[in-house]
Amino acid sequence: MSSSYPIVDIHTHMYPPSYIRLLSSRSTVPYIHQPSEDPNADPRLIILASDDDPARPKSARGRPVDGTYSSFDQKRQFMQAHGITCSVISLANPWLDFLDPESALPTAQEINDDLDKACAENNAQPSGLKLYAFGCLPLSAPSQDIVQEIHRLKTLANVKGVIMGTTGLGQGLDDPALDEIFAALAATNTLVFLHPHYGLPDSAFGGQETIAKSGHVLPLALGFPLETTIAVSRMYLAGVFDRHPQLQFLLAHSGGTLPFLAGRIESCVAHEREFIANGGHRQGPKRSIWEVLHSNLYLDAVIYGQPGLKAAIEAAGSVDRVMFGTDHPFFPPLGDDKNSKWLSVESNISAIDGCFPQNEEAQRKILGGNAVRVLGLDL
Amino acid sequence: MSSSYPIVDIHTHMYPPSYIRLLSSRSTVPYIHQPSEDPNADPRLIILASDDDPARPKSARGRPVDGTYSSFDQKRQFMQAHGITCSVISLANPWLDFLDPESALPTAQEINDDLDKACAENNAQPSGLKLYAFGCLPLSAPSQDIVQEIHRLKTLANVKGVIMGTTGLGQGLDDPALDEIFAALAATNTLVFLHPHYGLPDSAFGGQETIAKSGHVLPLALGFPLETTIAVSRMYLAGVFDRHPQLQFLLAHSGGTLPFLAGRIESCVAHEREFIANGGHRQGPKRSIWEVLHSNLYLDAVIYGQPGLKAAIEAAGSVDRVMFGTDHPFFPPLGDDKNSKWLSVESNISAIDGCFPQNEEAQRKILGGNAVRVLGLDL
Repeated sequence: MSSSYPIVDIHTHMYPPSYIRLLSSRSTVPYIHQPSEDPNADPRLIILASDDDPARPKSARGRPVDGTYSSFDQKRQFMQAHGITCSVISLANPWLDFLDPESALPTAQEINDDLDKACAENNAQPSGLKLYAFGCLPLSAPSQDIVQEIHRLKTLANVKGVIMGTTGLGQGLDDPALDEIFAALAATNTLVFLHPHYGLPDSAFGGQETIAKSGHVLPLALGFPLETTIAVSRMYLAGVFDRHPQLQFLLAHSGGTLPFLAGRIESCVAHEREFIANGGHRQGPKRSIWEVLHSNLYLDAVIYGQPGLKAAIEAAGSVDRVMFGTDHPFFPPLGDDKNSKWLSVESNISAIDGCFPQNEEAQRKILGGNAVRVLGLDL
Repeated sequence: MSSSYPIVDIHTHMYPPSYIRLLSSRSTVPYIHQPSEDPNADPRLIILASDDDPARPKSARGRPVDGTYSSFDQKRQFMQAHGITCSVISLANPWLDFLDPESALPTAQEINDDLDKACAENNAQPSGLKLYAFGCLPLSAPSQDIVQEIHRLKTLANVKGVIMGTTGLGQGLDDPALDEIFAALAATNTLVFLHPHYGLPDSAFGGQETIAKSGHVLPLALGFPLETTIAVSRMYLAGVFDRHPQLQFLLAHSGGTLPFLAGRIESCVAHEREFIANGGHRQGPKRSIWEVLHSNLYLDAVIYGQPGLKAAIEAAGSVDRVMFGTDHPFFPPLGDDKNSKWLSVESNISAIDGCFPQNEEAQRKILGGNAVRVLGLDL
């Protein structure tokens, strides 16, 4: 891909050095393990509970974590190989969810400063490649610390929003205790990139033994998007978007499965006896899920196929609400040729091309224009 | 809706009298409870584990089960109100999953005979409304009993396939012990209507308390389709469709979320280290999920919105593989006007109309033509 307009990747992860050190200091999930028997081997990254299979040696758990996770040079090489002109990098899951309340705020500050500084250093170079970042929040800290960091992030020139998982303060994103946080995010016009990590309980897939037969396919292909769908549906049903109508979320993996299930959600809400049980006075969310999709939600275009991408665009209500992403450095080529174009990226690009074969304006919006407008990127 | 071509509802449930008697004889899920304090009150149907909330009196658990569940007259009234000319009725979940091995076969035989006879009696009338049925299988019985019933069903003139849940013999549909059953289904050219019932573990939704705040919305809107998606993905990953390439499944609720996630499944399979770990010899499913969608799977059109329906048709590969359904008698109008058109039906019909505003041939196929062809209906 080579073009005269900006190609912006809004779903691309980095572990900055401070985060690598943090994970390397741990021995429970999430952690990084350096195999001692082979010091030249890539360290292993164990981030999912299902990765930490005690039946395997630690050197075979999780996935190899090579330089693509932490090297800004390799990020730029990847961008150049795919014609990407700007990456909005974000910490990969599970972010800071696992920190104790005392260390959460200083750790978040350190990592966010790291990210901002790395972007600034990159953007001062004449390469033409731009980097911006989604910050992370100290969600295990007291609420005032979280709110403080939300406001501080607005002073970091290269931070353009925050990335967040689905657990919130520990009780999910429909937790009323989050109202203060959501109010601060809305008041500061901070876009929240909602990303899965925890998937579904193993029993949903028939248990660990069944899951293991196909490696990570069930947790990654299904668990991740279903987790996102459940999280945003719980927010919707609990009235979060009614109480915070200015809240703006960008949903990973094209909304999980929300675009496909929005009609069923609408129908189930309309037919729910619980919502009209109170003397005929209608309870439940005040707006339809479609209205929330059209005014509070953006979707990335990380869906690897035309049927899904078309549904995402149609459910979002407009081609203006869907943004290209790669999920780099995950889903690398498995062969030896690490520098070739990545199948995972090419399949997302070809889906965009296939949806709009004769419409460069629509392609341009999804590939970068929407991100420039929504995030206020200086390109 | 009124038309000169057949309108066939392939997703419409009935509890024949023998099944009502069976549920009424039970006091654990699934069961029917007749409130003793008000003999005029509709009995309550408690079919989901989440329905059986001990904090509520039994008379307020589950949902009222009125004549729409068991009355063929009311089924015909519903069909006439919506212009449906043929219904392929099926037992509602949880079918016979809960029976002990000894009673499963005779119960299945009794219910299947009941269904076939009711269809025959209806079809002998001059009303112009036709009924056919999907039979049920005694899945808790020994395999030879199940195979015997699969073959016997081919002798019942009005039975056009079978309905099945996601548990199979108790271990899911990727259980190798099902190979004998799948071989019999394929050899007899028996279409399997795959339907959810068990949803996801409560913890996937944040627990029972969170679920209860929005009644049945989370288990029904999300749990049901996610269960179907997981079940068919497990079959795919385990090579069931490779071993039984003639197997034909019709997936409820437009495939759960399979059409939206097929691209992600394909990508995760392509990037799964487990599948190439064996000395470079590729493991895992032999065909792409798209090929399986195009040759082994049909989808109903019970998805309540255009974005989902379009994705279903595109993922299915053709408008020839998607079939209209209503999910009657579930999702009735909640107001007093029980005889008006049902919102749940109208939203599915308007999605079909909206997808093909100028294409009566496509509408005709989805609304009935495909069912006539695939099931061999005599209309």
